[in-house]
Order: sequence, then C-alpha cells, then structure tokens
Amino acid sequence: MRLRLQPRNTKFFDMFTEASTNISACVGVLGEYVAAPPERHQELAQRMHDVEHDADQITHTIFEELNRSFITPFDREDIYRLAGRLDDVVDYIDAAVDLATLYQLGDLPEGVHAQVRLLAQCAELTVEAMPKLAKPGTLHDYWVQVNELENQADQVYRRLLSWLFSGELDTLTVLKLKEVVDQLESAADAFEHVADVIHTIAVKES
Amino acid sequence: MRLRLQPRNTKFFDMFTEASTNISACVGVLGEYVAAPPERHQELAQRMHDVEHDADQITHTIFEELNRSFITPFDREDIYRLAGRLDDVVDYIDAAVDLATLYQLGDLPEGVHAQVRLLAQCAELTVEAMPKLAKPGTLHDYWVQVNELENQADQVYRRLLSWLFSGELDTLTVLKLKEVVDQLESAADAFEHVADVIHTIAVKES
Amino acid sequence: MRLRLQPRNTKFFDMFTEASTNISACVGVLGEYVAAPPERHQELAQRMHDVEHDADQITHTIFEELNRSFITPFDREDIYRLAGRLDDVVDYIDAAVDLATLYQLGDLPEGVHAQVRLLAQCAELTVEAMPKLAKPGTLHDYWVQVNELENQADQVYRRLLSWLFSGELDTLTVLKLKEVVDQLESAADAFEHVADVIHTIAVKES
Repeated sequence: MRLRLQPRNTKFFDMFTEASTNISACVGVLGEYVAAPPERHQELAQRMHDVEHDADQITHTIFEELNRSFITPFDREDIYRLAGRLDDVVDYIDAAVDLATLYQLGDLPEGVHAQVRLLAQCAELTVEAMPKLAKPGTLHDYWVQVNELENQADQVYRRLLSWLFSGELDTLTVLKLKEVVDQLESAADAFEHVADVIHTIAVKES
Repeated sequence: MRLRLQPRNTKFFDMFTEASTNISACVGVLGEYVAAPPERHQELAQRMHDVEHDADQITHTIFEELNRSFITPFDREDIYRLAGRLDDVVDYIDAAVDLATLYQLGDLPEGVHAQVRLLAQCAELTVEAMPKLAKPGTLHDYWVQVNELENQADQVYRRLLSWLFSGELDTLTVLKLKEVVDQLESAADAFEHVADVIHTIAVKES
Repeated sequence: MRLRLQPRNTKFFDMFTEASTNISACVGVLGEYVAAPPERHQELAQRMHDVEHDADQITHTIFEELNRSFITPFDREDIYRLAGRLDDVVDYIDAAVDLATLYQLGDLPEGVHAQVRLLAQCAELTVEAMPKLAKPGTLHDYWVQVNELENQADQVYRRLLSWLFSGELDTLTVLKLKEVVDQLESAADAFEHVADVIHTIAVKES
C-alpha cells in the first residue's frame, strides 16, 4: 500500500460516476428500442445520438480536467484509458442502433434481446463500481462478474450466429443482422475492457 | 511542466516525421489506385507493397534506435506504441489494396472514394503533427480534428454498408467489397489510435 | 542496464512457462481436430473447453500472485498484459473450434490446415521464449520470427478469403467458414501481441 502524501482529486471519481450513469441511460434507450414497435425506431435512434453526444462531452471534460490537474488519484494514463473505454461502450451501442435503423430491420430476434439483457447487467455493475474507484482493491468481485457476463455474452453471440446461418433468413437480412449483433458483442467486450483497466489500477495500487 | 535536465534525442522526431511522410506516400498510391483503370491495379498493388516494406524498415529503425538510446524524448513505451500505430495505418491500407486486387473488383464504388478522401485528410494532419511532437501540448487541435474525421469516416462507412446490403449487388461481390471497405475503415481507426497515443503523451507531459 | 537490489520473484517465469505449455496443448488439440473425422469433433471441442478452462485458471493464478507480490520481475502492468494476451490466444482457438462444431462444418479446407500449421509454429516459438523471460533482451529473434509467421498467416488468410468468395461454395457455408477462419486469424494476431508485450518489456529494460 503506497502512502498518499497528497489529497486525492475527487473530481475524477465524480466524472467517472457520471460517465457510468450515462452508460446506464444508453442501455436504457437500447432496451426501449428492442421492445418498441419499429415506427418508434427513428425517434429512439435520435435519443441514442443525444446520449452518445453526452458521452463525448463527459469524456472531453475528463481530458480537460486531466490537463489541468497536478495531482491525480491514479496514473494519468489510466484515467485517460478508463475514460476512453467507457466512451467505447456507448459508441458500440449507438452504432448498433444506428445500423438497425438504417437497415430498417424492424423487430429484432430473441437472441438480440438476450444480448441487451446482458448489457443491462454489465451497465448495472459498472454504475455500482464507479463510486468505489477510490478503493480499487474492493472491486475484485465486480471484475469477476463482468468477466462472467462477457463469457455468457460470447455464448449468446455464438448461438445467435448459428441461428443466423441456419438458412431460415435471406442472405441480405443475415448480413444486416450480423452487423448489429457484432456491434452489441463489441459493446460487451468494451464492458470487459473497462473492468480490465480498473483491474490494472487495482494491481498497481496493491 | 517537468524540468528537463537532459538534452532530448531529436532523432526520434525525425524518424516519426519520416514514418508520416511514408504514410502520405501510402495514401497517395491508394488515391491513384481508386482513380486508375483496373488494368493498372496489379502494378499499383506492387508499389503499395514497396511502401509497406518501407514502413516496416522505418518501424524497425525506430525500435533499434530505442534499444540503443539511454535518453528518450518521452516514455520508451510510448515511442514503441507510436511507431506501432503508425505502421498499422500502412498495413490496413496495403491489405485493402491487396484484397481489391486479389478479388479483381475493378472500379470501386463512390463510397470507397469518400473513404479514401477522408484518409488523405487524416494523413495530411498526421504529417503536419509529427514535426511538432517535441511540444505535444500544441497538438490538441490535431487530436480533435482526427477524431472528427474518424466520426465522418464512421458515417461514410455505415452508409456504404447500407448500400452494399441494399440488394443491388450479387452476394459474393457484397462480401468481397465489404472486406476492402472494412480494411479502409480500420485504417481510419488506426489514424485515431495514432492521435490517441500522442494525446496520452501530451497528458503525461502536462 | 538497471541495477537490481532485490531478488527477482521467479514464480512469474514459471507461471508464464505453464501458460505457454497450455497454449501448446491447445494448438495440439486444434491439430487433432482438423485431422480427425467429423464424428470426433464434439469430443475434441469438449477437450478444447477443458484446455480453455485451464488457461483461465493459470491467468487467475498469475493475477492473484501479482496482488500478493511486493516485488515483481518487471512492471506489474506488463505482467498483467502478458497474462491477458497469452489467454487471448486460447480464447480465439477455442472460439474457432466451438463455431466449427456448432456449424457442423465437417472436414475443413486445406487453407485452414495451413493456418493451423502456422499457429503450431507460433506456439513452439512461444514455449521456447517463456523460460528466457528473465533476459528479455535475448528474445529479439523470437519477436522477429513471430512477426514473420504472422505475415505468412496474413497471406494464407487473404488467399483463403479469395477462395471462399470464388463462388465454389454456397453462401451460408461461406459465411460459416469465414467465422472460423477469422478466429484463427485473430489467434495468429494474438501470438504477435504476446511477442509485442515481450518486446515492450525488453525495450524498458534496455
């Protein structure tokens, strides 16, 4: 355990908490999107873009604060990376919704709903974890649980590919759905990368 | 601002500038490729391989210099990463040209031309940025602009996918074009990763 | 050359060696899989899952040791990354075998056999390299050779795509095979990323 001779800058913890709350909003809009009738898809895609824009703002504010701060609660580059990985989650989910709307895919299959439920669980864990960042050593369970969810997401993804390629759908629909499904799988991976950065921080502090 | 008690090793700045000039050559050959009649594709793919080989040489020279140097202008691992990310740009563009030639795709669609124009703008910004690496704090605008270009590239990419999957083309052509388009999208991402490494360096120096 | 005032913790070298031996087992099962008649695929996919489970255990043990250790043979975050990248190799190969079994692809084409042979060579180099981690400066040849193998893997991969898209196979088979081939290509990339982490460590130590 390193001695801390300087007060921690708690602004970063607040900003990361804000970023995670925004991810929660993002996953909320995604949940509405997959439950809504297709005629609401345009409107919800627009709301998703607003959330994505908010994420960009939060990320930018963290970078500005980083440039202004002499003292940071952990390594500057880890703050930089954590902000980037949190932003990635929103980018992938926004891309999934944007593509589904662009392709006018209409109602999405059950496998996509399963992906969305797992992303909601990842978001919930992330929101709970952020306020505990000041003591990263306490976040071991969070990291283990996100890894387990990501393993489940892998399984759901592979079963979904298997169904997509079963011959039930026409080829162009297969290709379009696959792009959406791939973005949601990348979002699950991005949640794991967030957890990995936090694990690295915990490892350095130990 | 850290005090510098040691003279900076300016060789690295020269080598990164050389790497960016080579990226400029790379994007130049790519521009010729998409403008040229298909019968010139083989010859231009060969020229691209030469550029890719030059990139490998430059990267290798940077690594050798790194092994020889006691004093480096910024963290050794950031020099290592920056060299790697610059090399990635050329690798993706070479892959796009190699695949387009291998598949004998002939004239490429307008969307690909739009991708190439954005890559040319990224290359130009990167060439301008490299000689300013000694003062990474001055490169904030460069980082913002590359991020904006990458956002535009995302939009172009998604519209291109939408067109590819519209049913206008036969399935095998769709699959082949998608491989090429994906590599060019990865090249745009790679330019953003270059900018991200430089941003990290600036953050550490601040 | 930095002076070392503390004894090195050699446990990490043993654990990385164990991880590489497990990768060797993983590539061994992959080799059996592509050589075996399809009726053995289920059984071999199960054996692959066991290897993947072992990899997770080894990775977890390295992380636990990292949390317990005051003194580490190189930067904590590089130990963390190296363990993660070694685990990635097994994850991608397990995914390839899982998907090939799920899709009931039967006998795999010659191009896939070529991918598997290159992965076997990468595994062999990695197994030889791990016990030399205490002197990362001696691993320059290992890094060069893995990079060369990865270049060859790229070539094999592109030729394989070209054959896949030649019109010889039906579209759904093309899409299924491509998923498997992509995972094996990612495994080759993952071997390069392992070598890159070791190269970074060597660069820091130089």
